[in-house]
Amino acid sequence: MTPQGISLIGQQAITGGQAVIRAIDPSTGEALAPDYPGLDRDAVAQACELAETAFATYRETSLEVRATFLETVASEIEALGDALVERAMTETGLPQARIQGERGRTCGQLRLFASVVRAGEWLEVRLDPTLPEREPMPRVDLRQRHVGLGPVAVFGASNFPLAFSVAGGDTASALAAGCPVVVKAHSAHPGTSELVGRAVQAAVAKCDLPEGVFSLLFGAGREVGQALVADPRIQAVGFTGSRSGGLALLRTAQARPQPIPVYAEMSSINPVFLLPEALKARGQAIAEGFVGSLTMGAGQFCTNPGLLIGIKGEALDAFLAAAGEGVKGSAAQTMLTPGIHAAYQDGVKALAANAKVREVARGQAGSGPHECQAALFAASGSDFLSDEALQAEVFGASGLVVECADADEMQRVAEHLEGQLTATLQMDDGDLAAAQRLLPLLERRAGRILANGWPTGVEVCHAMVHGGPFPATSDARTTSVGSAAIQRFLRPVCYQNLPAGLLSEALQDDNPLNVSRLVDGQRDL
Amino acid sequence: MTPQGISLIGQQAITGGQAVIRAIDPSTGEALAPDYPGLDRDAVAQACELAETAFATYRETSLEVRATFLETVASEIEALGDALVERAMTETGLPQARIQGERGRTCGQLRLFASVVRAGEWLEVRLDPTLPEREPMPRVDLRQRHVGLGPVAVFGASNFPLAFSVAGGDTASALAAGCPVVVKAHSAHPGTSELVGRAVQAAVAKCDLPEGVFSLLFGAGREVGQALVADPRIQAVGFTGSRSGGLALLRTAQARPQPIPVYAEMSSINPVFLLPEALKARGQAIAEGFVGSLTMGAGQFCTNPGLLIGIKGEALDAFLAAAGEGVKGSAAQTMLTPGIHAAYQDGVKALAANAKVREVARGQAGSGPHECQAALFAASGSDFLSDEALQAEVFGASGLVVECADADEMQRVAEHLEGQLTATLQMDDGDLAAAQRLLPLLERRAGRILANGWPTGVEVCHAMVHGGPFPATSDARTTSVGSAAIQRFLRPVCYQNLPAGLLSEALQDDNPLNVSRLVDGQRDL
Repeated sequence: MTPQGISLIGQQAITGGQAVIRAIDPSTGEALAPDYPGLDRDAVAQACELAETAFATYRETSLEVRATFLETVASEIEALGDALVERAMTETGLPQARIQGERGRTCGQLRLFASVVRAGEWLEVRLDPTLPEREPMPRVDLRQRHVGLGPVAVFGASNFPLAFSVAGGDTASALAAGCPVVVKAHSAHPGTSELVGRAVQAAVAKCDLPEGVFSLLFGAGREVGQALVADPRIQAVGFTGSRSGGLALLRTAQARPQPIPVYAEMSSINPVFLLPEALKARGQAIAEGFVGSLTMGAGQFCTNPGLLIGIKGEALDAFLAAAGEGVKGSAAQTMLTPGIHAAYQDGVKALAANAKVREVARGQAGSGPHECQAALFAASGSDFLSDEALQAEVFGASGLVVECADADEMQRVAEHLEGQLTATLQMDDGDLAAAQRLLPLLERRAGRILANGWPTGVEVCHAMVHGGPFPATSDARTTSVGSAAIQRFLRPVCYQNLPAGLLSEALQDDNPLNVSRLVDGQRDL
Repeated sequence: MTPQGISLIGQQAITGGQAVIRAIDPSTGEALAPDYPGLDRDAVAQACELAETAFATYRETSLEVRATFLETVASEIEALGDALVERAMTETGLPQARIQGERGRTCGQLRLFASVVRAGEWLEVRLDPTLPEREPMPRVDLRQRHVGLGPVAVFGASNFPLAFSVAGGDTASALAAGCPVVVKAHSAHPGTSELVGRAVQAAVAKCDLPEGVFSLLFGAGREVGQALVADPRIQAVGFTGSRSGGLALLRTAQARPQPIPVYAEMSSINPVFLLPEALKARGQAIAEGFVGSLTMGAGQFCTNPGLLIGIKGEALDAFLAAAGEGVKGSAAQTMLTPGIHAAYQDGVKALAANAKVREVARGQAGSGPHECQAALFAASGSDFLSDEALQAEVFGASGLVVECADADEMQRVAEHLEGQLTATLQMDDGDLAAAQRLLPLLERRAGRILANGWPTGVEVCHAMVHGGPFPATSDARTTSVGSAAIQRFLRPVCYQNLPAGLLSEALQDDNPLNVSRLVDGQRDL
């Protein structure tokens, strides 16, 4: 299968008539065929109308049908074979192993949501039986389940062309929740997007689902995306990208007559606290782990550890020396897009030009047009506290070490941090008291807290939270990775005194779906 | 205890210096002492700062401490005795039995949340144990729990001076979630608000909690409320009131740099579908039930059945005649405030003046200054479909019967409805097919669906949903009544590879809190 430059509206293939997107091979700077002409607002409206129509059927598909559909999407993506891997490599500059791993993660994620759908926890069934004898008034029969919100708009991210893109986490969780999905493809990897979109489209057809369950739109600039978010049929938005992009979509959503949930994952510098005992005992090993995490995938992970916080002294000096050596030795890597590369260069330049910041090391320079030279900087705790610019995300392999005067200043730095996806403690047994003091601050500021690891691995599982307080995301109440992500696309409905013939399977007395329920506030399974 | 005209900021009693609020006895139109001078922005900021400080301690109170606190709030409210009941009656015009019932509901709600806190379902604990042998990478230990969002702003509602006011549902669920609460009192019942506020304040002191756990603010106009919502320390907003008031707060929240959840419950006309068999078999009884629900508490319930939808014919004519008789016989009742009364008069006048609307009946006129004369109108299905004004909420005992040409038009009317708190089916066995056809439409448009009851009773239990799609609320993902309301003030946090010494009790392996957990996606309790 080769990319054809088409958008997918339900089962149709559409060639737009607006400004053209063309992918760039970031390793060469060359444009890649085919062209992707953008859609107009009418096409966006058509996709939304199909999604709305499909919702009527799709929202009440059986758990088995929906789970099988998610599994079919995974199989269809796998069936794309090397064509997908090669196209994704060319469009992103990412190495083969990384793309293959990401494909595995993407398909694993779809299969996880299939199992989540079957298990039915997401229905959050609650039954409050009648209390006919209660005084002064009997209680009637009340039952609650969760249902899908409606059609969901998903924006593909630039940095994970598979796992956070067309059939990535947001799409998988929305489909699992019973919501049709209209994807706005990221312009950085249109061919990859089209191939995956055709796999989803094929799965829709194979499973005999209404075509509007899935559409894939292309558009240069922001018009298609904004029209999508403004469309009255869209009931929620999932986005992963820049702070400015996320906020623009949020503003568009806020201008709607009907407010809708916007799950924008935006920026995070993922602070790592180097606690004294750990730093003293194993500063060298921590430095190695840090450099590995910092430079992984040219630093283009939302969870890249961009900020380290330690207490001035010999151990931190030794750490800086070791980390500096590691960064110096780090090879240049091709960044995902010319735009990301330019923003990275600007960010590093701004830090280098900041009088409060000292350059510790630079990585190896590359020869390709969009290669990222890693960078490590340092600044004092007091300067960090007084200069908001030092907290700005530099998307790429750039890190800043904050040298605090003492533990109290470290605490103040923690208090000063904006919302984050993650916060990490490098700690040994002797650091427990210091960690306990930091933990409540970090809980308020981050969605995930790690000890003695690095934040760049985001496990797809049940307990994961990939989210966090603003500006990490626009809505800290949910996660975009892991099975709990299904909750973001659901709402509760209560049924009072309904005859058995009107109750969905999830709510029937004899629990035919065998789901865990709260009966009168107690788990019955 | 008598009202003193004070605001409560933590344990302090503050007399504001801004424009004065004075309650009106709606039955006489007379002003009630004392004056409540409004606060300024500094006082709002002070309450928020205290709340922020208190959050650091309160968020991690043990389940037992927090539950006991909620129970103490209930006891302190009960200890106010007749003084509270009498003041609330004077300020609202509601009869004694209704205020006593509402006090019981309010205290019962606080005690329900105490039991919810102890049960610990709200923690939504998820554990994904390590998989050290997994290939290609081992899985590390991951644990998730929910924590409070931070200080919450709660706006008292006019129509339930106890159950949706100072210590009402939003306050109870926020406190249960570990969030300090800053209440903006409704200006219609300041004395009631102060008395209840002092009960909460006393409970804070008795339980040795930090004073900022609760504050109560008075302010004329919208300045205090808007300053509260704009305050950067506030992390969520609970509101029950008018559409214009709710939307104004939503806009204020949207203008913040940090987006926060706004749970505004606004307007709902609570459609009731009169299905043919039921109408034929028991139209008279349905008419009686309807009139009782319509006129209950002068119609000032969010769940008042303001819209009935039936199919033209003899049975509907008979129903209209019976309901008209009932309305005609209904006594005038004092409305809650002069403002509500004026809005009701305007709404009824607009319907009466609408050429598409026919007046079926008016209730008895009253002699007091703010008495509500019930009203029943009718319009055709096609007129309803073409005139949005017929869907506007008239807050009070006014109902509109939509006469559809046939079942298909009834279906179109259902499709045309805005979001609602409730939707009701009056149905008999023979109506099952018709009900099945309507149900999916109603699920998309309402938070609660009833059969053969009336929506005005909102049970405080586990399965209740008092919420629904816009404009019923600004966020359909939650409920404001029932134990699930605690979820609106929580967010998930994930802990990766934390040493046991850093794990909160909720997350420890041996489950000392004895809470239901998802372990590797399976319920273990």
